[in-house]
Amino acid sequence: MTPSRLEAFSDGVFAIVITLLVIEIRPPQVQEGGSLAAALARQWPSYAAYLVSFVSIGVMWMNHHRIFDQVRRVDGGLLVLNLNLLLWAALIPFPASVVAEYLRDGGEPATTALALYGGVYLLAALSFSGLYAWVTRDDALLHRLPPREMVRASRRRFMLGIGAYLLAFGLSWVSAPLALALHAAMALYYAFDQASVERPEGAAAA
Amino acid sequence: MTPSRLEAFSDGVFAIVITLLVIEIRPPQVQEGGSLAAALARQWPSYAAYLVSFVSIGVMWMNHHRIFDQVRRVDGGLLVLNLNLLLWAALIPFPASVVAEYLRDGGEPATTALALYGGVYLLAALSFSGLYAWVTRDDALLHRLPPREMVRASRRRFMLGIGAYLLAFGLSWVSAPLALALHAAMALYYAFDQASVERPEGAAAA
Amino acid sequence: MTPSRLEAFSDGVFAIVITLLVIEIRPPQVQEGGSLAAALARQWPSYAAYLVSFVSIGVMWMNHHRIFDQVRRVDGGLLVLNLNLLLWAALIPFPASVVAEYLRDGGEPATTALALYGGVYLLAALSFSGLYAWVTRDDALLHRLPPREMVRASRRRFMLGIGAYLLAFGLSWVSAPLALALHAAMALYYAFDQASVERPEGAAAA
Amino acid sequence: MTPSRLEAFSDGVFAIVITLLVIEIRPPQVQEGGSLAAALARQWPSYAAYLVSFVSIGVMWMNHHRIFDQVRRVDGGLLVLNLNLLLWAALIPFPASVVAEYLRDGGEPATTALALYGGVYLLAALSFSGLYAWVTRDDALLHRLPPREMVRASRRRFMLGIGAYLLAFGLSWVSAPLALALHAAMALYYAFDQASVERPEGAAAA
Repeated sequence: MTPSRLEAFSDGVFAIVITLLVIEIRPPQVQEGGSLAAALARQWPSYAAYLVSFVSIGVMWMNHHRIFDQVRRVDGGLLVLNLNLLLWAALIPFPASVVAEYLRDGGEPATTALALYGGVYLLAALSFSGLYAWVTRDDALLHRLPPREMVRASRRRFMLGIGAYLLAFGLSWVSAPLALALHAAMALYYAFDQASVERPEGAAAA
Repeated sequence: MTPSRLEAFSDGVFAIVITLLVIEIRPPQVQEGGSLAAALARQWPSYAAYLVSFVSIGVMWMNHHRIFDQVRRVDGGLLVLNLNLLLWAALIPFPASVVAEYLRDGGEPATTALALYGGVYLLAALSFSGLYAWVTRDDALLHRLPPREMVRASRRRFMLGIGAYLLAFGLSWVSAPLALALHAAMALYYAFDQASVERPEGAAAA
Repeated sequence: MTPSRLEAFSDGVFAIVITLLVIEIRPPQVQEGGSLAAALARQWPSYAAYLVSFVSIGVMWMNHHRIFDQVRRVDGGLLVLNLNLLLWAALIPFPASVVAEYLRDGGEPATTALALYGGVYLLAALSFSGLYAWVTRDDALLHRLPPREMVRASRRRFMLGIGAYLLAFGLSWVSAPLALALHAAMALYYAFDQASVERPEGAAAA
Repeated sequence: MTPSRLEAFSDGVFAIVITLLVIEIRPPQVQEGGSLAAALARQWPSYAAYLVSFVSIGVMWMNHHRIFDQVRRVDGGLLVLNLNLLLWAALIPFPASVVAEYLRDGGEPATTALALYGGVYLLAALSFSGLYAWVTRDDALLHRLPPREMVRASRRRFMLGIGAYLLAFGLSWVSAPLALALHAAMALYYAFDQASVERPEGAAAA
């Protein structure tokens, strides 16, 4: 298995799951004497879940690419750890649909929905950290092992991410909308952050 | 991130969303004493929404390819603006299903459905313009900056497109079927227009 | 647009639509005092529609590849005709689900379901013929125009296919199960036929 | 048809079907006076079916790649046998959803659900064996025919796999949860087994 084949398969999964998110948004039922506009507005949690999940999966895809960019060969551990990561990433439409359905209810359902959503992200973040730790444990899989300081900085960033997802998970019991807002803030932060460290590349491959 | 990797991911999203449109068309319920043929005919808005959305997404894909054809390298802004574009393009099955469900009702539901449909297209068109403006602001990302006159002409075309989508959006309040017909006309016009400017290419890559 | 890019996009659509077929097969409801085995058996039309549609789309994919194998460059007409073909191919899960739902009812619903199914295949076959006629009208798009006798033989085969789909379409009014059986026979015949003319290839590309 | 084109199409189908599994997990209905947490917990068979199916399809993908890695050219038999394999692999979300719905019921429904699940895997395993037997019947399709002893060892492994799936199929009548547990154990065993025989590769392709 070459890294490019493994990355193409993973890219396929990310592209499919990001596009599948939309089928969780259903046309609303219009209530007697109500308007479609009001019915559409009432299902705002569906749109929020779509937006946050879309950007989050986009960030995961960029992050995944950044790691595989450095990978020169694939071993068994990488195969298993990558499949494990995809398993959690591909699951996201499910907690997103639970949030869409139960956020507006408030109380236990909203808390549980956000805890489920946050829990899946937490597992995805842990899977990412495991993958990165495996890849950077020595130079067996890499083109060139990055400077130790850089690896340590990256791992710190992964730890910070896990901490933030833990915070979002815990926030579910305080305020479900706030927990979703934290997810949104993190998705946007990471999107711009990933983008800002984007190295000039591509001329050679064009 | 190379342009070809970013384009392959985007192509994947366009291919998936164009193919997902079909799952919004459901087998109809046959009413007591009615025929399946009549029940199928009654859900013509589903077919209209499928046809218009399919051609529109096909045009977006061609348009996207035309822009990326000139791109030599990817920067952070391009990554974010491209993700933003995909977010709106991947959302299209949702307003399409709302149109399919509510167009026949007429009145407020039909108007709202078409306004939603038009609104998502308007946001996609604005996202396209932003992407194009970013890419052509100077020659940092391009193989070669096209002549200023050509860039200006392209931007005018994007502005015209936004104007037409604004018109379709506004038409929803006048006549929902007319607004959908304008979307259909625009999709067909752009499909033939994109196709007609297709440059001879491919021999080298074959 | 290079032929390989257009073919990769089309391959993506074929791969997605062939895989989406499965979501039309739903877990059955078990009736009071009934068994799941009996409920599963009762929905045999779902399995028949899956099998026939899967093989048919697989054949379309092979056929599409065989045509594009000879294409050296893409022009506007090819873009539009290819999008038109994908539009009908990507629609197949819808008539397949109508057949799955109404074949067992017999009478008008079964006839209408099969006529819809056959009609979509007929339009796909016509789209294929149009694409092939466009590509082979002269040597502008091809690596090398095949001998006129070979082009004529291929066109005859396309005509025969259209005739067979017309027959299946007409058979819907005689016997819906027979019409589906004809579709199954054609799918199997074409699968083995396409496979048998497969030229030895691949060593160079490996 | 080149092996790489056929493998890319197959990879697409595997990536789509592995990602489609999630749409079979639906947000639960909360019962009067019940909690969402309890409702989510009650649908554990959905999660079990997702996990087992995800890993199993991942293993199929790795297995498929390992076979095609050695393939130098494609003939008609390989095309048909590969389409046959994809047909069963792409079907997996259906028995997975039946298991998700009926495992908790126990009795006949649970047995039938697991027998259906096991039966589809059995057919997929038989399809794999047929594909491998075709590819290794002589050196017409391979870069180089592996040593006879190695081919025999691989075929024995395929036979063992078929035996294990037969066992899981039979276990459905003894204990449905046990049959699912055997599927889980096999998926995990094969995932680590496939991974452990992963040859160092990729540096050249990077």
